[in-house]
Amino acid sequence: MHSEVKTILEKVSQGDLSVDEALLQLKLAPYEDIGFAKVDLHRKVRQGMAEVIYGAGKTPEQMTKILDVMIAAGQNRVLITRLSKEAYLEISKTHPLTYYEEAKIGFTGEIPQPDGIGKIVVATGGTSDLPVAEEAALTAEVFGNEVVRLYDVGVAGLHRLLDKKEEIMSASVIIAIAGMEGALASVVGGLADCPVIAVPTSVGYGAAFEGLSALLSMLNSCASGVSVVNIDNGFGAGYLASMINHMEAKK
Amino acid sequence: MHSEVKTILEKVSQGDLSVDEALLQLKLAPYEDIGFAKVDLHRKVRQGMAEVIYGAGKTPEQMTKILDVMIAAGQNRVLITRLSKEAYLEISKTHPLTYYEEAKIGFTGEIPQPDGIGKIVVATGGTSDLPVAEEAALTAEVFGNEVVRLYDVGVAGLHRLLDKKEEIMSASVIIAIAGMEGALASVVGGLADCPVIAVPTSVGYGAAFEGLSALLSMLNSCASGVSVVNIDNGFGAGYLASMINHMEAKK
Amino acid sequence: MHSEVKTILEKVSQGDLSVDEALLQLKLAPYEDIGFAKVDLHRKVRQGMAEVIYGAGKTPEQMTKILDVMIAAGQNRVLITRLSKEAYLEISKTHPLTYYEEAKIGFTGEIPQPDGIGKIVVATGGTSDLPVAEEAALTAEVFGNEVVRLYDVGVAGLHRLLDKKEEIMSASVIIAIAGMEGALASVVGGLADCPVIAVPTSVGYGAAFEGLSALLSMLNSCASGVSVVNIDNGFGAGYLASMINHMEAKK
Amino acid sequence: MHSEVKTILEKVSQGDLSVDEALLQLKLAPYEDIGFAKVDLHRKVRQGMAEVIYGAGKTPEQMTKILDVMIAAGQNRVLITRLSKEAYLEISKTHPLTYYEEAKIGFTGEIPQPDGIGKIVVATGGTSDLPVAEEAALTAEVFGNEVVRLYDVGVAGLHRLLDKKEEIMSASVIIAIAGMEGALASVVGGLADCPVIAVPTSVGYGAAFEGLSALLSMLNSCASGVSVVNIDNGFGAGYLASMINHMEAKK
Amino acid sequence: MHSEVKTILEKVSQGDLSVDEALLQLKLAPYEDIGFAKVDLHRKVRQGMAEVIYGAGKTPEQMTKILDVMIAAGQNRVLITRLSKEAYLEISKTHPLTYYEEAKIGFTGEIPQPDGIGKIVVATGGTSDLPVAEEAALTAEVFGNEVVRLYDVGVAGLHRLLDKKEEIMSASVIIAIAGMEGALASVVGGLADCPVIAVPTSVGYGAAFEGLSALLSMLNSCASGVSVVNIDNGFGAGYLASMINHMEAKK
Amino acid sequence: MHSEVKTILEKVSQGDLSVDEALLQLKLAPYEDIGFAKVDLHRKVRQGMAEVIYGAGKTPEQMTKILDVMIAAGQNRVLITRLSKEAYLEISKTHPLTYYEEAKIGFTGEIPQPDGIGKIVVATGGTSDLPVAEEAALTAEVFGNEVVRLYDVGVAGLHRLLDKKEEIMSASVIIAIAGMEGALASVVGGLADCPVIAVPTSVGYGAAFEGLSALLSMLNSCASGVSVVNIDNGFGAGYLASMINHMEAKK
Amino acid sequence: MHSEVKTILEKVSQGDLSVDEALLQLKLAPYEDIGFAKVDLHRKVRQGMAEVIYGAGKTPEQMTKILDVMIAAGQNRVLITRLSKEAYLEISKTHPLTYYEEAKIGFTGEIPQPDGIGKIVVATGGTSDLPVAEEAALTAEVFGNEVVRLYDVGVAGLHRLLDKKEEIMSASVIIAIAGMEGALASVVGGLADCPVIAVPTSVGYGAAFEGLSALLSMLNSCASGVSVVNIDNGFGAGYLASMINHMEAKK
Amino acid sequence: MHSEVKTILEKVSQGDLSVDEALLQLKLAPYEDIGFAKVDLHRKVRQGMAEVIYGAGKTPEQMTKILDVMIAAGQNRVLITRLSKEAYLEISKTHPLTYYEEAKIGFTGEIPQPDGIGKIVVATGGTSDLPVAEEAALTAEVFGNEVVRLYDVGVAGLHRLLDKKEEIMSASVIIAIAGMEGALASVVGGLADCPVIAVPTSVGYGAAFEGLSALLSMLNSCASGVSVVNIDNGFGAGYLASMINHMEAKK
Repeated sequence: MHSEVKTILEKVSQGDLSVDEALLQLKLAPYEDIGFAKVDLHRKVRQGMAEVIYGAGKTPEQMTKILDVMIAAGQNRVLITRLSKEAYLEISKTHPLTYYEEAKIGFTGEIPQPDGIGKIVVATGGTSDLPVAEEAALTAEVFGNEVVRLYDVGVAGLHRLLDKKEEIMSASVIIAIAGMEGALASVVGGLADCPVIAVPTSVGYGAAFEGLSALLSMLNSCASGVSVVNIDNGFGAGYLASMINHMEAKK
Repeated sequence: MHSEVKTILEKVSQGDLSVDEALLQLKLAPYEDIGFAKVDLHRKVRQGMAEVIYGAGKTPEQMTKILDVMIAAGQNRVLITRLSKEAYLEISKTHPLTYYEEAKIGFTGEIPQPDGIGKIVVATGGTSDLPVAEEAALTAEVFGNEVVRLYDVGVAGLHRLLDKKEEIMSASVIIAIAGMEGALASVVGGLADCPVIAVPTSVGYGAAFEGLSALLSMLNSCASGVSVVNIDNGFGAGYLASMINHMEAKK
Repeated sequence: MHSEVKTILEKVSQGDLSVDEALLQLKLAPYEDIGFAKVDLHRKVRQGMAEVIYGAGKTPEQMTKILDVMIAAGQNRVLITRLSKEAYLEISKTHPLTYYEEAKIGFTGEIPQPDGIGKIVVATGGTSDLPVAEEAALTAEVFGNEVVRLYDVGVAGLHRLLDKKEEIMSASVIIAIAGMEGALASVVGGLADCPVIAVPTSVGYGAAFEGLSALLSMLNSCASGVSVVNIDNGFGAGYLASMINHMEAKK
Repeated sequence: MHSEVKTILEKVSQGDLSVDEALLQLKLAPYEDIGFAKVDLHRKVRQGMAEVIYGAGKTPEQMTKILDVMIAAGQNRVLITRLSKEAYLEISKTHPLTYYEEAKIGFTGEIPQPDGIGKIVVATGGTSDLPVAEEAALTAEVFGNEVVRLYDVGVAGLHRLLDKKEEIMSASVIIAIAGMEGALASVVGGLADCPVIAVPTSVGYGAAFEGLSALLSMLNSCASGVSVVNIDNGFGAGYLASMINHMEAKK
Repeated sequence: MHSEVKTILEKVSQGDLSVDEALLQLKLAPYEDIGFAKVDLHRKVRQGMAEVIYGAGKTPEQMTKILDVMIAAGQNRVLITRLSKEAYLEISKTHPLTYYEEAKIGFTGEIPQPDGIGKIVVATGGTSDLPVAEEAALTAEVFGNEVVRLYDVGVAGLHRLLDKKEEIMSASVIIAIAGMEGALASVVGGLADCPVIAVPTSVGYGAAFEGLSALLSMLNSCASGVSVVNIDNGFGAGYLASMINHMEAKK
Repeated sequence: MHSEVKTILEKVSQGDLSVDEALLQLKLAPYEDIGFAKVDLHRKVRQGMAEVIYGAGKTPEQMTKILDVMIAAGQNRVLITRLSKEAYLEISKTHPLTYYEEAKIGFTGEIPQPDGIGKIVVATGGTSDLPVAEEAALTAEVFGNEVVRLYDVGVAGLHRLLDKKEEIMSASVIIAIAGMEGALASVVGGLADCPVIAVPTSVGYGAAFEGLSALLSMLNSCASGVSVVNIDNGFGAGYLASMINHMEAKK
Repeated sequence: MHSEVKTILEKVSQGDLSVDEALLQLKLAPYEDIGFAKVDLHRKVRQGMAEVIYGAGKTPEQMTKILDVMIAAGQNRVLITRLSKEAYLEISKTHPLTYYEEAKIGFTGEIPQPDGIGKIVVATGGTSDLPVAEEAALTAEVFGNEVVRLYDVGVAGLHRLLDKKEEIMSASVIIAIAGMEGALASVVGGLADCPVIAVPTSVGYGAAFEGLSALLSMLNSCASGVSVVNIDNGFGAGYLASMINHMEAKK
Repeated sequence: MHSEVKTILEKVSQGDLSVDEALLQLKLAPYEDIGFAKVDLHRKVRQGMAEVIYGAGKTPEQMTKILDVMIAAGQNRVLITRLSKEAYLEISKTHPLTYYEEAKIGFTGEIPQPDGIGKIVVATGGTSDLPVAEEAALTAEVFGNEVVRLYDVGVAGLHRLLDKKEEIMSASVIIAIAGMEGALASVVGGLADCPVIAVPTSVGYGAAFEGLSALLSMLNSCASGVSVVNIDNGFGAGYLASMINHMEAKK
């Protein structure tokens, strides 16, 4: 949308658009107000980019209506995150969705050919981190990235991680996902030479405090190039990784 | 260093290096053990890259010895962060340093010509965030980036931020630095179309809880493309921003 | 009630009421003791003001008995907050209630004509904040205020918020409701020139910590004129907004 | 400033101002950029309103420069909060200031005649809360309010508070300031019939946890009409109280 | 038991008991080991005192076995706290219990005649605090105290509390029970001239943080003579109040 | 004071005092307003009882003025807690004080003969808890109690504690003071048969978190009869212990 | 596995193994990659040692597949922790397991003869700690240790603990398990002369904060020789105790 | 001491000691009461073992007196931890001490020949952890252990740690010391096959929260055989490591 806005503004400055027209476009274009929500329609101008609906806290009816608006606006790639199976079944009555149960992701349309700078590695500390990892991996794929999955490579079994050194050292961006002590981010950050997006998960018990332990650990990583997103925020990591992996295309 | 290691390993696999020789190189190359510290000498092989000493918790004597080792290894660009004025004065008796007092940064050598994809914007919510902002900005400059400083553009005076919309929308990477409620990251993240690295600062009082408020706020940002580093970690943000801003060069 | 008490005391000081009589009135007037609760009957003397029952932690039987007492005391406008659908169905067997399911509010009687200084704007960051917003909006309406609802205007999509600048800048009081990073309060506070009551919500996950993130963020707002109520406390915000919006009438 | 902006926009829509001129005014008017700070000059158009400098984290030199800009812009009432005695002495070399040591407030110009709806009561739980209370009281006075000070009326000595019932019940707005258990807000909120702004203070020790105890207590107040500002934020409370106390003048 | 132990030791020192015999008595007397639990049988020697079983985390079978042992040891007054209705129904198949559903207390035997120094007042801030209050009140009654219940006298409606001034000022011990801001303890502590045992409850929402707010508030009480027990610990308060109310009998 | 108030009210109800006179007495008697403080003069009517000044956060000048008022009101026993040596030296220029440096307590007048039910035991876990212990012990002595000091009897050396079993089992009230893990309260509570007042101290480091560890530990004590006061609150414990130790005298 | 790796490396250095062969062994030996998990097969080389599956967050299908791999690798002793009854029933369709319901442990094969240095004492503060205690005890038994169970010996009833002094003082390692105030670790640590592994449990309510109170308490233990594992981590304690109890065998 | 007690009791049971004599010995032997402290004299009976004084919170005078008692009791090896340089200088006037400034340890007597099972490895994540590491290492040496120091082997530079694989894999016990993200414990725990004692340090800033981050991380370690002591508790780790390293000698 931003470039859309910019284009409009430039047209005005070049006399190609009257001020009134411009204001109208700016008012109407960026979103549609459907009462309970203001639906952003930012990305349709860039071909191939999916719109995103954050499904948590929305009823199937609300999501269906948002989908209606998006599809009416010509958007045929929509990603719904945090989508329960029940909501998926309800929505799919009117909108066909591919549903990824472990990741709790629904998707309309087809996953595009990857076109980023390189590969995005999604690594997890354990098996229980898979739902978050799949949310990240699928998000990255939906936004046009090749994804390499390295699951269950926690630091307590360093050999499993070192075995994958090749993948780690040749990655364009790495998403390091771990609960409990969250040490994966630091170790991977030390091995890799690319941006590492750390995702703490709520996996664990007791002093894991619902992901707080992993969150603090990752924020304090002594490896350079590591940044952190919210606990269990696989989508955010996948989206940011895609953004970084498309840096060169952007200029 | 990593690619150095890889090169060594490839040479071995191609028979260009005996196993013993390889082991020796691997043992000796990556760091030098000086008792209280193991000095990494990773970056000298990539021309122009600076080595970094984290100054907090190290005595001037320790830093001087680490500098000795680095310079002996041919590294003439060394960045020292969290360097107190007293320590700077002590170290500069033997090693000439440029000292940036507000950022508490010392630097040997010269700041290189910027060569990244685009510009890195460093934005702060207020005047008190300047020390962290300068740490981030100088780090980015030392690693070869053009930096645009937007200081005191906190969200409570939205006009000051919107005035800088151009800079924000044309940035390659944005570092959003704020204490107190930390809302700058979300607002900037919503305006921008590039990775935003959020740095919470310990600026504020009372329920700011030494940066906790800004940290949580930034982790919960509803804008996509935002990730977070530790409270007051200007260096980490500057380093990661540089990494992202050099993505295309890397492949 | 307070002015009632004052009136009684003044009557005594003017000899219009014996001390015994006064004591009796003071003892009897303000509340009725029904064992498990002491029912306040403060507001009946000011025509049009509703009494409030905080429904959480009370059984339908207890609420029915409190309603009996209030209605017997001539109060025909009673607002019940945090009222589950089950409890509503049980209570409505004996007391007809209008039930607002999303807001979990029950109400006897009719919503009065608005008579405050100006309009109260209720703004939310997202769709998931609606239940809290409706609790606030309905409370304000029940106490005689015109309410403007601006839903889903979170700061990550600043254009949606700026589109509503008119409503924000002409408001008498604004209730800013947001979970996650809670930045809405600061941005609205910077745009508006009237008191802003910030309501953090428990919307979000991970480092939102059940509303703690939004709470701290709002308490640290760098915008002047912002104050905060408890997490999810839509009623408290609506009631205080009404109080402020009726300031001139009070003198 | 906001109405200033609005006026400019209306002039444009009425053809009284060219777009370029308007843009210029909008760009220049609201603030002046002096490098380390963007100085807002919002309030000069409303006669009598003071501008505010938040002194914490600013050097005397920075504050002097901001004062220069403000005074050059015709603003002769400037309030500096969190101003240390040392900084005051430095600044007063070039700008004469009245300095209130207990409140750590500096002020240029004269305190205006009060013109609000009624009186603002500033009540404290103990003697140690005085610095915060004076910050609130002086702020309210500087913005044109009559202030009644009720100090050391903590709830553990209820007779001292009830003695001041008259002042409490006739207030227009009450600022309730307390550390430790912070119960003053609830008790005053129950007695009063006007908005109560609660200010937790960092007074206390042990489980007071630097004001956290009072903060949580006040956020959970069971009295209606109570809202909370940051720990020790006397200025914020005074400013908001003034805003509420001038509600009728605003329409 | 303690005095039992002392008696045994004194008998030894007076030659009335051989060392072996004494050791045997000391080993056997104080408890019976039934595998999963070591059942204390302390109080049987002091006639009229009840034994207590903390029911939470124990199965009905475990509680039944403990009851078997206690009753076999001649104890016919046993108080079971935190007893769910289901567990009560199961246990009462073999042991007749009086069950107090709101307090979740089961009791064998009869409540004794009160014989303490004076009356124990149990006061609550609201209606939702009743389960904790009844646990405290019944415990005090079971241990031989006259209890006065003052429910729903929260500080936001001070008149309701002041109406009960007589009861408060003539109490021997007061148990002040409140959730949310927990201010009741301080206000009652200021009015009363006897020990006040404060019980924070988990009543409330949001920033009440499951009782943390009330707990901190009560620990910081500025009234003298106030001490605090665990959140929701009605039993602990009732037991301690009884201990204090029987001080004179003890000497 | 409370009984003073009651007496006044009873005189009115018996016609021995006119309402006006009564009001006057009630207004004047309980405290004297000296601007920054309202000095309570409660205890003078009960012979021998000391008044208390909480010294923290008060200047020597303020304390001197409060002392002036108290002594003018005929109170010759005044206890000042949290009194720094500097403040003591300043105050003692006009008011002779006995100063207990370790306890940071100043006292005018003489310590009375003990007259309570029994002895108050003050026990500490370690040597570092002494300042808090002395504050408690001296407070208890000033209010007329015999005090037994058991210092450095922490639970890690159980033999040291068991050696003092006699003192513990014959105490009237026990004050258990400990930092770090705070286990002393539970162990003493299990041995004793009297009320135990637990005082967590800020002694310790790391995960002691300034007394939080001991505080939580003591609140969770599984021993009956234990209640807790604020961290380092020796005065509060001593005062409450005295209150309990004088229970019989009160009736 | 580690010694396996070492053996391989030594064989290479002695020319008994080609580098390629060695690499292959190292790559293949330590784990088998089955997609969602990398199954470690470390311990099969040391006869008698069981492999461990952490059951929480794994589906019965996943655990069955991991079991398949382990058994195929010749491992016939596998311990599954945190195994729900439902999962047990599902898994046991293909793999016969002994299931310990209280400990939520499943085990294939037979518990070996104990062969450690001495006995491991497992002590608990209360009856509710049994599930954690059994997890610890069974783990220790499965790894070849003689275990002495001392349940319900909490410090509030010191006689019950002192009765077991013999067992405590003759233990090789002690596992001290307690919730609430967690004082057991310190008292046992003071009595014993061997390593004490403290396990805080989530038993308790209110200020127990899900085990935080016991955790902090144990970390602050003033007894030497005490270390702590995660809340409710019976397995970790049992495993570490076994490691320590087999120290001499190791050299 | 414990075995001393046991010996005494056994002598009594064998008739070699009269009960009175035994009581006397038990009363006198274990400690000497010098008012502010009860000095344990446990270890003198086991030749070569040092007594320990925890220096924090003790005055030089107090420490000198405790030393007097210990030396009078024949103990010539005393370790004083947390000893400031000032206190050392004061004490050394009467008692010659070897002072280790970085570790803040004072020691009388000579460090004994190591006699444990194997070597104790002390590893740190960074240079700033040295003071804690030296406290641990010196403690272990004083209690008769051979210590291998591996400093600055943090996980972000895995090659530095893997270089020391030999030392790690052949250790008897490992003490892993790290601040910030504390990942060292997990990585070392995964490499090693012996007990790992993790010591979180308060090194770091921001979200390190004075060691909380490292503490939680270490408690959640997914490596088996790891347990944790208090933040910065080098002594505790060293003492426990020594205990474990002397297991075989003990039986």
